[in-house]
Amino acid sequence: MVAKRVTVEHHALTITAVDGPGMMYRLTKVLAYHEADIIHVDLSIEASMVRVYFEVQLAKDRVVPVLTGLAGTPGVRDAREIPSVGRIYGKRIIVMGGGAQVGQVAMGAISEADRHNIRGERISVDTIPLVGEKALATAVRAVMRLPRVQLLVLAGALMGGEIAVAVEEVRANGLRVISLNMAGSVPDAADLVVSDPVQAGVLAVMAVSDTAQFDLLRQTRKRY
Amino acid sequence: MVAKRVTVEHHALTITAVDGPGMMYRLTKVLAYHEADIIHVDLSIEASMVRVYFEVQLAKDRVVPVLTGLAGTPGVRDAREIPSVGRIYGKRIIVMGGGAQVGQVAMGAISEADRHNIRGERISVDTIPLVGEKALATAVRAVMRLPRVQLLVLAGALMGGEIAVAVEEVRANGLRVISLNMAGSVPDAADLVVSDPVQAGVLAVMAVSDTAQFDLLRQTRKRY
Repeated sequence: MVAKRVTVEHHALTITAVDGPGMMYRLTKVLAYHEADIIHVDLSIEASMVRVYFEVQLAKDRVVPVLTGLAGTPGVRDAREIPSVGRIYGKRIIVMGGGAQVGQVAMGAISEADRHNIRGERISVDTIPLVGEKALATAVRAVMRLPRVQLLVLAGALMGGEIAVAVEEVRANGLRVISLNMAGSVPDAADLVVSDPVQAGVLAVMAVSDTAQFDLLRQTRKRY
Repeated sequence: MVAKRVTVEHHALTITAVDGPGMMYRLTKVLAYHEADIIHVDLSIEASMVRVYFEVQLAKDRVVPVLTGLAGTPGVRDAREIPSVGRIYGKRIIVMGGGAQVGQVAMGAISEADRHNIRGERISVDTIPLVGEKALATAVRAVMRLPRVQLLVLAGALMGGEIAVAVEEVRANGLRVISLNMAGSVPDAADLVVSDPVQAGVLAVMAVSDTAQFDLLRQTRKRY
């Protein structure tokens, strides 16, 4: 449905407006009018105001009329262009499971991400310590709804059943999954199995990095 | 602008639709018609399809007509209710700065979050190893645009200048900030200064937890 355009530009816009039903509708109406393709959106509500953050693909020279249209929308207090969150926080790796192992994987991943980010990449490492088959399976499935996530690391001593089913589902949707070597069926469902949690974190960052010489797809189903 | 209602319910909805300009406008039009108050939104794009995730406040018994309206919107393939991301990942703590210190703060925070999450809370610990005054100041300001963030920990050996200005700005917007004890003016700008990075991580989680007996506001400007 995207019409062919000579030049499409990426813009990040932030709008501060009075909160309430219909505000998002009025803002996206302006974007639709200018054929802006929304590729990311976030909102935060404080007191009676809402701050909406859009990343859009927009035909060249369209950003000024879009900002004028947004600023002129009833209830809007401010509309401006800003640097994109994607450019600031970059790719995300999510580590979930038992606290002890999640901490060790995070250590490895953060150290490795630091080395890449110093050279200009942007890789974030996000974690949630969480136990229980149902809670973890739900969290694994919900990863698909989080923005900018490239890879999931499952860190624990025992994971299986519904969690393994959820891993197969997210892998079918294109997410890559590294599992620690552990009891249960999750390691069998993952792309890669690693015994040392610090190394698992390092490999996770290497797998999503633009510069590292590591291709997870060539490692599929291997165990270290 | 929110009309008084007898019962307002919280719902999480996910919609799969053909991607392209105007889709968000058509979806939010349905929500506006039913006076749904959008409190969270995320979208992810895969190939030519977009998956949109809304959390809405909705008058009792309105969720079925909303889902029917969304499912009947041109281009929509699927619309359904699911468990909310907020309920799954909960509150977020963001740790940013140098890799070595970020890793140690994350270790403390993840261990402490594990203890709280086992008892039913949901606290996530997100990190980005990042250096440089400008990059860090931009990332600090952008925290305000990330959903569900409750507290920021700045972990490094030297931070000042524009980063300290950014810390004052986000604190003025209600975000709480813990700084490691370090060179530069950032410790002076923070709510709380902690020397040991592991302890800083533990205190960060205690500060956002519903159950811990620790009130950051009573510690303001203290140093440990």
